[in-house]
Amino acid sequence: MATELYDLTVVPFTRGLRALSALLDKAVAHAATQGVDPETYLALRVIDDMNPLIKQVQTACDSPKLCIARLSGIAAPVNDDSEATIAELQTRIADTLGYIASVPREAIDGQEAREVTLTFPGGEMKFLGQPYVTGFAIPNFYFHVTTAYILLRGAGVPVGKRDYMGERV
Amino acid sequence: MATELYDLTVVPFTRGLRALSALLDKAVAHAATQGVDPETYLALRVIDDMNPLIKQVQTACDSPKLCIARLSGIAAPVNDDSEATIAELQTRIADTLGYIASVPREAIDGQEAREVTLTFPGGEMKFLGQPYVTGFAIPNFYFHVTTAYILLRGAGVPVGKRDYMGERV
Repeated sequence: MATELYDLTVVPFTRGLRALSALLDKAVAHAATQGVDPETYLALRVIDDMNPLIKQVQTACDSPKLCIARLSGIAAPVNDDSEATIAELQTRIADTLGYIASVPREAIDGQEAREVTLTFPGGEMKFLGQPYVTGFAIPNFYFHVTTAYILLRGAGVPVGKRDYMGERV
Repeated sequence: MATELYDLTVVPFTRGLRALSALLDKAVAHAATQGVDPETYLALRVIDDMNPLIKQVQTACDSPKLCIARLSGIAAPVNDDSEATIAELQTRIADTLGYIASVPREAIDGQEAREVTLTFPGGEMKFLGQPYVTGFAIPNFYFHVTTAYILLRGAGVPVGKRDYMGERV
């Protein structure tokens, strides 16, 4: 029985990215009721030395994109993080959803023992596919979706836990 | 191959709860350097109508506890959410870690099709074990750990992404 990697990755990532997109839609709608420019939300941050909302959304897209590319070996879109508006972030989310939807289940399932190497300025981390997904990609993804949610919630956008959880895929 | 439910639940929950405990230790240490009472952190919240840190930590414990109880059918400790100090939250985390460590792998693996029913004031949600874990328990757990992290980070506690991710189990 057990759980195949596709169900551990593409399925919840799709749900989370759609939830993130809907959060941004609610932010735009709320801004309109307040007479504020919704783009000002993009600079929201928890504290000065933490990334702002725009970067949280970009990273929330990179996390599933890179995960699926690393597991499948199928090239992912290259993003230069040039988004400057909510509309552009929505395109980024849609493109990410499109990429992960384009990768067939057969390219992901069975990659539990695939070697995954992440490189950072300070060195590298080596994983096998399964612990990479459960111990790195998933917590990282939810970190950035939650942070985006909290930044909007803290700014008064009327969203609740169900908006974070999203709709079942 | 695929991933057994134990590796999807007990393993990452253990890592995340240990990370949460270490975050609280860092908060206490930071408070000492600032000459502030660390217990004041417990009332931190993102916005007035969102739960404070103390409740975020309690819920971050409930999420894995209830998940493992629902999958395994093995009774979990009952918590009355009476914690009022960081030391008591640390005990709650330790008790949760103890409970999930006490449940044998055989009681969790293979429960992918087990019916799980969650009851809320507004009704109930029915799942099978596998989508309950990947679509509910996991995103819920990381939501509360991330929120606790962000509340401490926003209060100036010197923690970074690695503290959130924790140590490999």
